[in-house]
Amino acid sequence: MEPTERDTALSYYKDHQQEYLRELTEFLQIPSISAIPSHQADVRRAAEWLAKRLKQAGVPRVRVDDTQGHPIVFGEAITDRTKPTVLVYGHYDVQPVDPLEQWTHPPFSPTVIDNILYARGASDDKGQLYMQLIAAESWLKTAGLPINLKFLFEGEEEIGSVHLSQYITDHQQDLKADLAVISDTPMFAAGVPAVCYGLRGLATVDIEISGPRQDLHSGVFGGAVANPAHVLASIIAAMHDEHGRVSIPEFYDGVDPLSEEDHRNFSLLPFDEQEFLQQTGSPRLFGEKGYTTLERVWTRPTLEVNGMWSGFIGEGRKTIIPHKAHAKISCRLVPHQNPSAVLDNVIQFIRNRCPDTVELRIERGEADPGTLTPLNHFATQAAVKAIEDIYHQKAAFIRMGGSIPVVVTFDQVLGIPTLLLGFALPDENFHAPNEHFHLENFDKGARTIATLWSLLENMDGQGGTADVNS
Amino acid sequence: MEPTERDTALSYYKDHQQEYLRELTEFLQIPSISAIPSHQADVRRAAEWLAKRLKQAGVPRVRVDDTQGHPIVFGEAITDRTKPTVLVYGHYDVQPVDPLEQWTHPPFSPTVIDNILYARGASDDKGQLYMQLIAAESWLKTAGLPINLKFLFEGEEEIGSVHLSQYITDHQQDLKADLAVISDTPMFAAGVPAVCYGLRGLATVDIEISGPRQDLHSGVFGGAVANPAHVLASIIAAMHDEHGRVSIPEFYDGVDPLSEEDHRNFSLLPFDEQEFLQQTGSPRLFGEKGYTTLERVWTRPTLEVNGMWSGFIGEGRKTIIPHKAHAKISCRLVPHQNPSAVLDNVIQFIRNRCPDTVELRIERGEADPGTLTPLNHFATQAAVKAIEDIYHQKAAFIRMGGSIPVVVTFDQVLGIPTLLLGFALPDENFHAPNEHFHLENFDKGARTIATLWSLLENMDGQGGTADVNS
Repeated sequence: MEPTERDTALSYYKDHQQEYLRELTEFLQIPSISAIPSHQADVRRAAEWLAKRLKQAGVPRVRVDDTQGHPIVFGEAITDRTKPTVLVYGHYDVQPVDPLEQWTHPPFSPTVIDNILYARGASDDKGQLYMQLIAAESWLKTAGLPINLKFLFEGEEEIGSVHLSQYITDHQQDLKADLAVISDTPMFAAGVPAVCYGLRGLATVDIEISGPRQDLHSGVFGGAVANPAHVLASIIAAMHDEHGRVSIPEFYDGVDPLSEEDHRNFSLLPFDEQEFLQQTGSPRLFGEKGYTTLERVWTRPTLEVNGMWSGFIGEGRKTIIPHKAHAKISCRLVPHQNPSAVLDNVIQFIRNRCPDTVELRIERGEADPGTLTPLNHFATQAAVKAIEDIYHQKAAFIRMGGSIPVVVTFDQVLGIPTLLLGFALPDENFHAPNEHFHLENFDKGARTIATLWSLLENMDGQGGTADVNS
Repeated sequence: MEPTERDTALSYYKDHQQEYLRELTEFLQIPSISAIPSHQADVRRAAEWLAKRLKQAGVPRVRVDDTQGHPIVFGEAITDRTKPTVLVYGHYDVQPVDPLEQWTHPPFSPTVIDNILYARGASDDKGQLYMQLIAAESWLKTAGLPINLKFLFEGEEEIGSVHLSQYITDHQQDLKADLAVISDTPMFAAGVPAVCYGLRGLATVDIEISGPRQDLHSGVFGGAVANPAHVLASIIAAMHDEHGRVSIPEFYDGVDPLSEEDHRNFSLLPFDEQEFLQQTGSPRLFGEKGYTTLERVWTRPTLEVNGMWSGFIGEGRKTIIPHKAHAKISCRLVPHQNPSAVLDNVIQFIRNRCPDTVELRIERGEADPGTLTPLNHFATQAAVKAIEDIYHQKAAFIRMGGSIPVVVTFDQVLGIPTLLLGFALPDENFHAPNEHFHLENFDKGARTIATLWSLLENMDGQGGTADVNS
């Protein structure tokens, strides 16, 4: 049998594997910590290293675009304008490394032990971003890309993607595509490669309750004026029932009942409740009645107090009635909830519960929807097939409880869905000391992505429901 | 009619009034701020000034006793061991003066304008303490004291009387007396001299609720573990009904219903609800149903959250499930409540309400009872008569919502009641800029106290119910 173009591309990749690892090591040596101002030049150095490497790979059009913060690297390789275009997103900035003394190897001196690569950024996200790059190169240096690829690599993901949304809005033409692919998520577990098809959204609100003009002597005034801390506590307490279900009217409007498909997908996963509990360190798990733990964190909206404070919080004692009480609240939303309506309901609930013995100030925060990539989307099925080809096993379908704002921006600004196809393992210490990446998944992941590129060749503009095998 | 001994004493006082004011000015110039370490020598200087001045007044036995903190001044003038002995308490330390720029005159450069003396400590408590001293002197320099007097002046009242209780326990013999008199309280209002016959007690407890081992990502874990902030809020919310009545079982055990006497006393007071509200700056007053504002703050126990905190309280947003939540709680108690039982009930309530999805740590604080000096006590009636003699008007009977721990110590360690007979006005800016003292009350107060000494001559050891006129 004659080798296919894909075989040739994968064979090119295999021949250069050692070189790729050496280059990744070089990339990981750049301490591109976006949060620390003294590393500003390092962040730029990483951007420029990346742009140069994209050009070497054969991407014809590459730019380092300045923002008000750290730069954005843009690349474009157009093969054939009639073919599908995929926008690859990743970030080249990394988290700070504190506490440094807990690292067994220096964070910016990449070290391989037992086929595991230790370095800050190894899994989050330089390693995964680099897999995208070499998967592209293996095609560019052989038969040429089977689809059009665009690259969007930012340097501010770890500080909240401050300038990304504006950049995307400003560069809609450049970024026009049929699909976004992100490799910045974990597999479900070791040996369980997964396609992530759902993310929760986020809506936030801050509350300030003011009572007296200043803290009052609790002996002189206690019993005759409302205490803002009590008012805040009573509002927060009313927000959930005893099983953690949110009591705010209409909060669950739009939430889909768990589908048969979700049920089936989740039941196939090797989920260990005890292990999850141990990860939290809580005495017991807890949550809305009638749902499993995975269902609770993936498919149900939640409301959490992220912070609250009032009065005297120092050492010792101050017998006062505090003049103010504050809370920061965030909701994780699921697809088909209306984030703005959710905030309206939360705010109305707070207003209704707040007595006129105090004053209330509410600050409305962001309101981003949850996102869902249809399981029957062409890209989802292509990813499943690519995983099967390389891992020789069925892909798991997972969702995530967290939020990735750029997915919402891709949806709302560019009008495209996002395929989340990551190869990190959940316990590879992203954001913590001794971050690492299993090179087995670096290898298989790069080959899975290279395979995906060829499978996406037949995707039509709508993503549609076409069978990837057809 | 021949002048009585009291006339002679008051006449001596009158002759020296200008001198006394000059001396008080000297005393007020010493910046005896107990809270600020750099003023330690000033605090001692004030103690020594006071000890010297007591000796000059004719008090035979005077000591400056060291403590682990600021010194205590002790004085003793025994006239006749068969006569009643009164222990006079006061404090010579003062509050810090910040914000200094709000003072219209330097805080330690006493200034008289319109018969009002402006200085830190003028009303709280150097001015009032000094009235006790000159009232004693006016007798000591004339006919001799009609009773035995002991003086206990501390330098740590403004920092919580850190070493006073131990000192009293260690010096029970020295401090043996039939009655304590304190002039560190306000009159009810200008022109309304008052005897304070009740104080609230204080019981405190701190709560710490722990959930996960550390703050958790609210996307990854939100919905599956209990949030300590929610648990704390629900416990605090359950502590009161909507009208501010404490919902903790047995909390009101031992609380006396409002007596006819209390009703009558309070109804005579010129209390302005609007003025009280304005003092607080709250939008509305609020409190337990069926009671007036004065009844609420003077005769009803309360429970207040003095501080609470959990999670992220900085600028911006951190979408976490906090790993801990804390609250500092204090109860103001009224006479005949059992403070220790109140704390037991509060703690039991918290335990009962705390689910096993989190861990609870409770730190039990102090538990001091409320105090009540019987209205028919000989000393109370003597004070009323002294006020009538000097102010030519009926004394008001008031209670106070605050707590004065030394009153509890006098009761529990020395076994004596305390007469609270203060001459400050409620709006003389104790603890604030531009503290002042109305010299009209400095004059009348000193004469009232001098009169009281002679009226107490006939008090028996029990205080009893004997009529002061008999």
